[in-house]
Amino acid sequence: MIIVLRPHTSSEQVEHIVERIEQLGFRAHLSQGELRTIIGVIGDESKLQVEPLAAIPGVEQVLPVLKPFKLASREFHAQESIVLVGRVRIGGGSLAMIAGPCAVENAEILDEIAGRVKSAGANILRGGAFKPRTSPYTFQGLGEDGLRILHDVGKVHGMPVVTEVMDPRQVEIVDRYADMFQIGARNMQNFDLLKEVGQARKPVLLKRGLSASVKDLLMSAEYILAEGNHQVVLCERGVRSFEESTRNMLDLAAVPNVKGQSHLPIIVDPSHATGRPDLIPAMARAAVAAGADGVHVEVHSCPEKALSDGPQALLPAQYAILMGDLRKLAEVFGKIIP
Amino acid sequence: MIIVLRPHTSSEQVEHIVERIEQLGFRAHLSQGELRTIIGVIGDESKLQVEPLAAIPGVEQVLPVLKPFKLASREFHAQESIVLVGRVRIGGGSLAMIAGPCAVENAEILDEIAGRVKSAGANILRGGAFKPRTSPYTFQGLGEDGLRILHDVGKVHGMPVVTEVMDPRQVEIVDRYADMFQIGARNMQNFDLLKEVGQARKPVLLKRGLSASVKDLLMSAEYILAEGNHQVVLCERGVRSFEESTRNMLDLAAVPNVKGQSHLPIIVDPSHATGRPDLIPAMARAAVAAGADGVHVEVHSCPEKALSDGPQALLPAQYAILMGDLRKLAEVFGKIIP
Amino acid sequence: MIIVLRPHTSSEQVEHIVERIEQLGFRAHLSQGELRTIIGVIGDESKLQVEPLAAIPGVEQVLPVLKPFKLASREFHAQESIVLVGRVRIGGGSLAMIAGPCAVENAEILDEIAGRVKSAGANILRGGAFKPRTSPYTFQGLGEDGLRILHDVGKVHGMPVVTEVMDPRQVEIVDRYADMFQIGARNMQNFDLLKEVGQARKPVLLKRGLSASVKDLLMSAEYILAEGNHQVVLCERGVRSFEESTRNMLDLAAVPNVKGQSHLPIIVDPSHATGRPDLIPAMARAAVAAGADGVHVEVHSCPEKALSDGPQALLPAQYAILMGDLRKLAEVFGKIIP
Amino acid sequence: MIIVLRPHTSSEQVEHIVERIEQLGFRAHLSQGELRTIIGVIGDESKLQVEPLAAIPGVEQVLPVLKPFKLASREFHAQESIVLVGRVRIGGGSLAMIAGPCAVENAEILDEIAGRVKSAGANILRGGAFKPRTSPYTFQGLGEDGLRILHDVGKVHGMPVVTEVMDPRQVEIVDRYADMFQIGARNMQNFDLLKEVGQARKPVLLKRGLSASVKDLLMSAEYILAEGNHQVVLCERGVRSFEESTRNMLDLAAVPNVKGQSHLPIIVDPSHATGRPDLIPAMARAAVAAGADGVHVEVHSCPEKALSDGPQALLPAQYAILMGDLRKLAEVFGKIIP
Repeated sequence: MIIVLRPHTSSEQVEHIVERIEQLGFRAHLSQGELRTIIGVIGDESKLQVEPLAAIPGVEQVLPVLKPFKLASREFHAQESIVLVGRVRIGGGSLAMIAGPCAVENAEILDEIAGRVKSAGANILRGGAFKPRTSPYTFQGLGEDGLRILHDVGKVHGMPVVTEVMDPRQVEIVDRYADMFQIGARNMQNFDLLKEVGQARKPVLLKRGLSASVKDLLMSAEYILAEGNHQVVLCERGVRSFEESTRNMLDLAAVPNVKGQSHLPIIVDPSHATGRPDLIPAMARAAVAAGADGVHVEVHSCPEKALSDGPQALLPAQYAILMGDLRKLAEVFGKIIP
Repeated sequence: MIIVLRPHTSSEQVEHIVERIEQLGFRAHLSQGELRTIIGVIGDESKLQVEPLAAIPGVEQVLPVLKPFKLASREFHAQESIVLVGRVRIGGGSLAMIAGPCAVENAEILDEIAGRVKSAGANILRGGAFKPRTSPYTFQGLGEDGLRILHDVGKVHGMPVVTEVMDPRQVEIVDRYADMFQIGARNMQNFDLLKEVGQARKPVLLKRGLSASVKDLLMSAEYILAEGNHQVVLCERGVRSFEESTRNMLDLAAVPNVKGQSHLPIIVDPSHATGRPDLIPAMARAAVAAGADGVHVEVHSCPEKALSDGPQALLPAQYAILMGDLRKLAEVFGKIIP
Repeated sequence: MIIVLRPHTSSEQVEHIVERIEQLGFRAHLSQGELRTIIGVIGDESKLQVEPLAAIPGVEQVLPVLKPFKLASREFHAQESIVLVGRVRIGGGSLAMIAGPCAVENAEILDEIAGRVKSAGANILRGGAFKPRTSPYTFQGLGEDGLRILHDVGKVHGMPVVTEVMDPRQVEIVDRYADMFQIGARNMQNFDLLKEVGQARKPVLLKRGLSASVKDLLMSAEYILAEGNHQVVLCERGVRSFEESTRNMLDLAAVPNVKGQSHLPIIVDPSHATGRPDLIPAMARAAVAAGADGVHVEVHSCPEKALSDGPQALLPAQYAILMGDLRKLAEVFGKIIP
Repeated sequence: MIIVLRPHTSSEQVEHIVERIEQLGFRAHLSQGELRTIIGVIGDESKLQVEPLAAIPGVEQVLPVLKPFKLASREFHAQESIVLVGRVRIGGGSLAMIAGPCAVENAEILDEIAGRVKSAGANILRGGAFKPRTSPYTFQGLGEDGLRILHDVGKVHGMPVVTEVMDPRQVEIVDRYADMFQIGARNMQNFDLLKEVGQARKPVLLKRGLSASVKDLLMSAEYILAEGNHQVVLCERGVRSFEESTRNMLDLAAVPNVKGQSHLPIIVDPSHATGRPDLIPAMARAAVAAGADGVHVEVHSCPEKALSDGPQALLPAQYAILMGDLRKLAEVFGKIIP
């Protein structure tokens, strides 16, 4: 950590700061510039907090040198991690193609959609049983019935299933039916929920929050990893911005950005990011070209009758065409779609 | 709701759309423009969802006419609501002055701070027992011990207390010790938590999320109101922006913006919004001048030793000066600080 | 245009609004809902302004139905436009590969870079002679000397050249040396400058402003088109966001988003968008996969000695590898790089 | 400046970096931590650029220590500057009350508005003659005719006038008629325009750009100051954000934020910031309470007939009520409205 002092700091102030640093078990290394004095703090930075240091009189800025996450970092684990969902490998050149409706509505519809996406090349089935909805008056999901339907339909089609968990009290029941937990964007910093899935032994799909930086996303992954669950897949799904013509702004640079700092796989969800079926295929192709470890797409056989998030779903036929493109791209970059 | 059709929509498409609207129990009112056909949907809009309509072929835009919240709206309840925390009234010209440390660290420190803020004019004591922290490696709060200390110190000083609840499973225990629940910014859309405090019978301080619009904030309040708990106080505490020199961007216009649409009281937290003690007093004064129903300020007797969020706290002496200014402002606008 | 009235609007107010609409030469079409009255305004919407209508007492919202741009729209010109820069076609399946240093520093360095990017496959040379710099104390460009060097080096290598124009008074001189004007992000809404290049007869590369929506970008293009210059190429180069680890946030969804609404070609600049050479190749690949009509990359043989924007430049060898990837992607999508 | 090296940097790399620093005329001060080596660069930082240093292999981060602006800083000029517009002092406890219509439409209307705002207490008259409009098809201002009307009406009412200049070629003519130049938000980084008004000898009202940070604003002021014009007044007028219910987001914390770093006066424009007359008074009051040196408000006697930006204007009667509140606030804080 580097501490930059204000100009004209008195020597008593400097001494007080050095004392505080040493009380905390660190060494201080002074460097007197022409206009500012700078103090290098030497020791294990992960045990140090910026805030209290910044509050010491005479301190202008506190600059952390190290990344605040450890287990998620490339420095801790140089090789790319591979996460196994059922028999589907995510990472290391193997691409997750997650598809399905926003919400599980009933077994017939889900079965039809699953059959269609599976034959198009999807390898993991998604569907929500607990739905985080902005309004208390809209469809909130089928709950355990939805989980059961999802599990059974997945089994019929030989696809592992992923579904959202919103509340720490739901972790146990979701664990019973799903092959992968999904933590939604709104819950990325629901730290009690992160700890709870961290204690489970199933892979977690962790979606980036609407105003979360890449560093925040990796810090949330750290919560799960710190509890002992190392099977975390990140998901870029757009952040909030001033651009009104799309639902969110897809930050595709997050893909190489994460890969440079972390060993965790990262996939992309162009459905929630754009909210517009006319933009989803282009963004799905871009995701694979950017190096993503998979693509998460909402597919519904009749979006206009869907109970939730209708218009951001592709039709099965559109998805099949998209998958054709993605297969070609995977080939160009030497990746496989298991 | 208004449905705008794409140019050159066929009459079959128009009929299909009208059919769908009528199936949903609404009436359709066509209006043929020169370049576009527009359909007015007549009926109880709160039962209608935008998404599935937007997915019907031929539909270009779906424009909701009514606000999506009801119980929180001025139309539902024209007069300003007053929320009672202990004996302190919030709203209707009565200002909440909430102060205290970020986290409860121990009884001595809290007692000292409580004494100082009380004598400066604060009327509600705050302090965190459960802390949402970005990093899993930093201080996470004292839990129930912290709650007990907060409760006891509040009692000694005759101040009702407010503290954050992060997990639906904590609602019961927090209810035992606190006079008001706080829902933090990161949990503003933790819908299960909202429902849980909605079933409690204590006032709730609901903080705006980092990327939540004013409408989102009111929709989250609606979740609590819909469960039967009408004692909701909103809190503007800054949103995420590109400006790096402050922790968040305080959206003070949210105060009159909320007051125009809703009967719920709204207070302002300049501590989290700015993260800088040099900016807090100016923003607190601005909040009262903008019509806020109170101000929430972090105060610590030694920010450099605080276990959490040190530098965003004022010293007790700074808080006392600020309260002097706020009293004068309250007088100018005919408000009282109980 | 649709006008939504407030609840309980008196019939006098409604009459007054209808009168105003008719005074402006439009017809009004009333539609009485249960809770709101809605007025459809029928006539040529491009002559109507939202603002004065919104100010009429009783009006709650004014919703424009049509896009505010015309000449830039697909409705005006259904087929994709092709812009010719020298002999290089941009659009219609033909990709611009624009490369070169941020600023023209001297003839030797530019000649070396031009040779390297040309042999790697670039088809247009870039280099700044007038530099918009945040600080008045940093290198501001070589001015006319820089233009002359750029022109001469382009000629030697058989590459048309593009360079930024910042001031309406520079249009004439830039026109003398360059094959394409560039309007930088900071000048996207410098309307006098837009009009001036609109009166020239050379292609314009119009970069998206740091806080411009896709609609704003198309409106700025409309300024140029309205002056009679139809050779406009748009450029997505990232917008400002809360994410601090990249210089800007690349909004790649703007590519299909623009293509759905406009016939103008759009290219992508991953150099300014990310500011990080480790992210540029992935974003360049993603741009082509998303359907962009070209890629604009800064290349410098020694970024650490560059006088401006050093670290966002690729080395010539890195650019050559990237061009290999882009050629493969172009082939997958049936595009050519002339 | 502080240079943080990547872990495991070779000693050759370190030597190379030190060499580069010394070639640039600075001294390097090494500090070997446990995990990172840090180099302090000692010398006049304002002559150093971050970018080329960041491009040297082995460099992870370059952290500037000093502020990039000089003439605008408190360190250069400790006391608050006072800017004189006609006989009106801005700064040092004296508040500018700037009011008038968005655009000058004709002499009669302007005269009426001027009379009304003057008698309410406004001390500077505003009105646009050159209008930056998003659409090329909307009213672009009266040009020199507008300037003449503004000048004459100002004279009649004894009010100095301020008006926007959009193009360096307009500086001369605006100088002839106006008492203060206004640089609009869209031109905050139109550096040629900044230099041009920097060479004039009239005060400049510099508005913050829609995506400009406080630092960017001060850097743009620096451009004007560096040309020798020291009469700069800053204006906070909102930045672009995801919040759709207001036109922009007013960043009122910019007021104390600027005052802590700079000696320049700063005023607030709640009209453009909110775009909503129901929010303007509350934000004007908050601005004065936050310590602003003035308030800039659009006033029109008939917003529904205004040729530009109608609904963001107050009516003269609303303005008079607001001025009553602002006078009371000025008194509380010991300020005067000349």
